[in-house]
Amino acid sequence: MLPFSRVAIIGLGLIGSSVARAVRQHMPTVRLTGHDADPQVRGVADRLQLCDDIADSAGAAVTDADLVILCVPVGAVGAVASEIADDLPADAIVSDVGSSKASVAAALSAALPNNQIVPAHPVAGTENSGPEAGFSTLFHGRWCILTPVEGTDPTAVARVQAFWRALGAEVETMTPEHHDLVLAVTSHLPHLIAYTIVGTASDLEQVTRSEVIKFSAGGFRDFTRIAASDPTMWRDVFLANKDAVLEMLQRFTEDLTALQRAIRWGDGDALFDLFTRTRAVRRSIVEQGQDDARPDFGRAHD
Amino acid sequence: MLPFSRVAIIGLGLIGSSVARAVRQHMPTVRLTGHDADPQVRGVADRLQLCDDIADSAGAAVTDADLVILCVPVGAVGAVASEIADDLPADAIVSDVGSSKASVAAALSAALPNNQIVPAHPVAGTENSGPEAGFSTLFHGRWCILTPVEGTDPTAVARVQAFWRALGAEVETMTPEHHDLVLAVTSHLPHLIAYTIVGTASDLEQVTRSEVIKFSAGGFRDFTRIAASDPTMWRDVFLANKDAVLEMLQRFTEDLTALQRAIRWGDGDALFDLFTRTRAVRRSIVEQGQDDARPDFGRAHD
Repeated sequence: MLPFSRVAIIGLGLIGSSVARAVRQHMPTVRLTGHDADPQVRGVADRLQLCDDIADSAGAAVTDADLVILCVPVGAVGAVASEIADDLPADAIVSDVGSSKASVAAALSAALPNNQIVPAHPVAGTENSGPEAGFSTLFHGRWCILTPVEGTDPTAVARVQAFWRALGAEVETMTPEHHDLVLAVTSHLPHLIAYTIVGTASDLEQVTRSEVIKFSAGGFRDFTRIAASDPTMWRDVFLANKDAVLEMLQRFTEDLTALQRAIRWGDGDALFDLFTRTRAVRRSIVEQGQDDARPDFGRAHD
Repeated sequence: MLPFSRVAIIGLGLIGSSVARAVRQHMPTVRLTGHDADPQVRGVADRLQLCDDIADSAGAAVTDADLVILCVPVGAVGAVASEIADDLPADAIVSDVGSSKASVAAALSAALPNNQIVPAHPVAGTENSGPEAGFSTLFHGRWCILTPVEGTDPTAVARVQAFWRALGAEVETMTPEHHDLVLAVTSHLPHLIAYTIVGTASDLEQVTRSEVIKFSAGGFRDFTRIAASDPTMWRDVFLANKDAVLEMLQRFTEDLTALQRAIRWGDGDALFDLFTRTRAVRRSIVEQGQDDARPDFGRAHD
């Protein structure tokens, strides 16, 4: 028994096209429709045969769907939801894949008061964008967080849960507010810091940009990968999850100041203690299968 | 013609043992001697047959060498150099692999005034430590920076350059001071920030440590890898390269504050502009072969 038989995907970038590929692989009998606001992306999606049908409007893509997934930047969710409101079947469940959830949950509920809404966030991705960057195994072994608002039909939640499990993900449920706090620290703050340091490095006068690039293997390159993530998506995330991001940033800055002071005063013990503590966190992440322990992430050495 | 025929490696951790393995692979006729202050490490090195001979003292390891490489934390370089001074042949060239260079160059010159000194920094590594973590291809395609002080015999520099090229590295020469500035931004600051954010995340009250680990795939895990690097080595680097690290930290903090302000005031354009600029830096790094462009760094998805 499949949880859904007609799935519509609005937005066919990295995540939307990966969902389409994963549905094809794991639920080949599902009828897939899709739409993207960019005609060029629709052309690529057609050529790649990502869906059974690529519609020219978001409304046309959803007319027959029992699950609609909005895979657009979180700042666009409200507008897209309004766009599909008239064409959306009353029994269709609406979900999304956005990286912040409180603002998305509110926007979806406001625009689509008569539908069951189950906001979702698959915690997976790469630094690449667009329909050609997706792949069907992106969600394998990764977490997908559902943030249904109070009063949502438990059956709707269970079906969306079954959908993500079928794509290979593990599913967790929490409130939108708690999600936004957790992701502020595990995802939004790391991105913000990576963007900052890459910017700082490109602005130096004493060190050339070419030197920064040449000697990036000392740690910097790991930051550049994150800082290459989609600019529109991330602008929207920071604006949508402002309060939690600012709180985490405040804590980070305090901790960084303490470390700066330890360096200035030559307090080697304080540095050593922190560095020993953080090593243990890494071990837990590798043990729990959320990263690869091979030297250099399994990068090719030859 | 090999640049050296008898190489001594003092310190057999990740880097020292990788140098030993790489010499074995690329210059199999070189006679390799080694020493490590830790008897347990010496035992492992013996068992792995990393060298032709593992000596019980640093002095005994260098008596017959024409190249001596100190692969110890930068804070220990001066003490180890004094330890080998009496046994060191006058024509032996002394080098190291430390991540900061001005303090190392000064310590080596002070302790060994009669030998040619060619400090070196292979910009390569992993988050793992110890003799079993090394591998022979660690330096392939990576940069090794030489920082000879003024007055060094050019032939000595050329021989060390030939040595690193033979191990598969590309070689660049610069002053110790410029090296310390370049590496402060490409390596030391990224490590400092990664250590900080991993510490910040483990200290939260509202978000559990298990949540941080579970949902780390959103960006955080990339920081934890760096924050798992050797605590002793990094304590020494920050203390040895204090001035350059503090200067870069100051610039980073200013830039982060500007971004914080943009988020607080909802200035999406400022965010978008920076995020677009940083993406270009990433492209250059991948183009120049200093990282892997595959989605997720080539991590296994299944």
